[in-house]
Amino acid sequence: MRTVAGTLEAALSRLFVEPVKVTAAGRTDAGVHASGQVVSCVTGRAFPFERLTVALAGLLPADCSVREAAVVADGFSARFDARERTYVYAVVNRPRPSALLVRYVSCVSQPLDLDAMRAAAEHLIGKQDFRSFAAVAAEERTVRELRRIELGKAGDLLRIEVAADGFLHHMVRTIVGTLIECGTARREPSDVARVLAARDRAAAGPTAPPQGLYLAGVRYEDGYDSFAEPPILA
Amino acid sequence: MRTVAGTLEAALSRLFVEPVKVTAAGRTDAGVHASGQVVSCVTGRAFPFERLTVALAGLLPADCSVREAAVVADGFSARFDARERTYVYAVVNRPRPSALLVRYVSCVSQPLDLDAMRAAAEHLIGKQDFRSFAAVAAEERTVRELRRIELGKAGDLLRIEVAADGFLHHMVRTIVGTLIECGTARREPSDVARVLAARDRAAAGPTAPPQGLYLAGVRYEDGYDSFAEPPILA
Repeated sequence: MRTVAGTLEAALSRLFVEPVKVTAAGRTDAGVHASGQVVSCVTGRAFPFERLTVALAGLLPADCSVREAAVVADGFSARFDARERTYVYAVVNRPRPSALLVRYVSCVSQPLDLDAMRAAAEHLIGKQDFRSFAAVAAEERTVRELRRIELGKAGDLLRIEVAADGFLHHMVRTIVGTLIECGTARREPSDVARVLAARDRAAAGPTAPPQGLYLAGVRYEDGYDSFAEPPILA
Repeated sequence: MRTVAGTLEAALSRLFVEPVKVTAAGRTDAGVHASGQVVSCVTGRAFPFERLTVALAGLLPADCSVREAAVVADGFSARFDARERTYVYAVVNRPRPSALLVRYVSCVSQPLDLDAMRAAAEHLIGKQDFRSFAAVAAEERTVRELRRIELGKAGDLLRIEVAADGFLHHMVRTIVGTLIECGTARREPSDVARVLAARDRAAAGPTAPPQGLYLAGVRYEDGYDSFAEPPILA
């Protein structure tokens, strides 16, 4: 399977004429998009790095592009030095799914009650154990600080923004799946507190499909933030 | 190659348990999208047609959907009874192409002068011979009535809407390619009059890429119009 990391590594390896491995700040499972991913890599080559994005543009396929590049301090890791990640999830909420946007949004046919979803989201804010919202084979340490969940709607397009110091595997998609259950009244907003306390994946709602999810931004100690709005929502 | 017509015919043939051929109102070449295509077909089957869209939803792939269906008069043709077609073309105008929208827009890196493009477009309005804007192996009759060209911009997203009684093969894309040359000052707006008079494909600009083009609507005698804004521009 073609992956963003593999695609970047192939281009960088050609450019630097040596094998290059990249470290990505955030997960993007199959079908998930990134508008603000950050990767780091190490190379021994001298290269005019101010020309790196232009040089890569000629080597990357049209659906993968590098917006900026910079030389960083020795030992910097795009992943381990990240202080906050922001994911955005896009839902088209209308009876008929969107054929044209099928790879870029998730479709929910039942009308969503945004107030109920916002009330449910309130329970998730803070430093908590998110084991219930992680894929079954989750990390050992499942406490994360969820700093922000914002829901907004324009026409039939719903935008959910979630920011945390870090995320467990499938965490955003399981949060979205659970909020959607609250939005369609299959679940009470207050039930989310019980789901958190259960520390059990089975207590939460379904994992929302990958195509609505965007890694939108990563923030670092020095204040640098790669945030870029997914074009479908801009 | 998978085509919209072929995909619809396969679904309709399964539903009606007989071979079904569809007639489409407008061309959508490979890579071109349709938000407002209209097709007609003939069947001998009795079917509860008010349930046709729901039944087809279960048989069509996620990237093809039928918005409405109706029983029409004998002899009706989605193609030959169409009175006006509207195409919309989407251009992202910024230095870096859009990796996420690559299948849904065309990217132009040089800044576009909208006023110059509008001045150029003025020359195309009216009942004229559009042979210069048709694929080389064009139809015999190349006169069409171009009724409307509107250019609008929101952020770096340019929207070009073109309506006519009908279009020649590649006509919208060649118009867009020529307007873009005017927008980047490679061609004077007034040159478009000369291009029309030449009746020669070589006089016009390049054929703009298919992925920015949407068949957005088809209007019929009775006033029915299938127009739907491409979601990328909504």
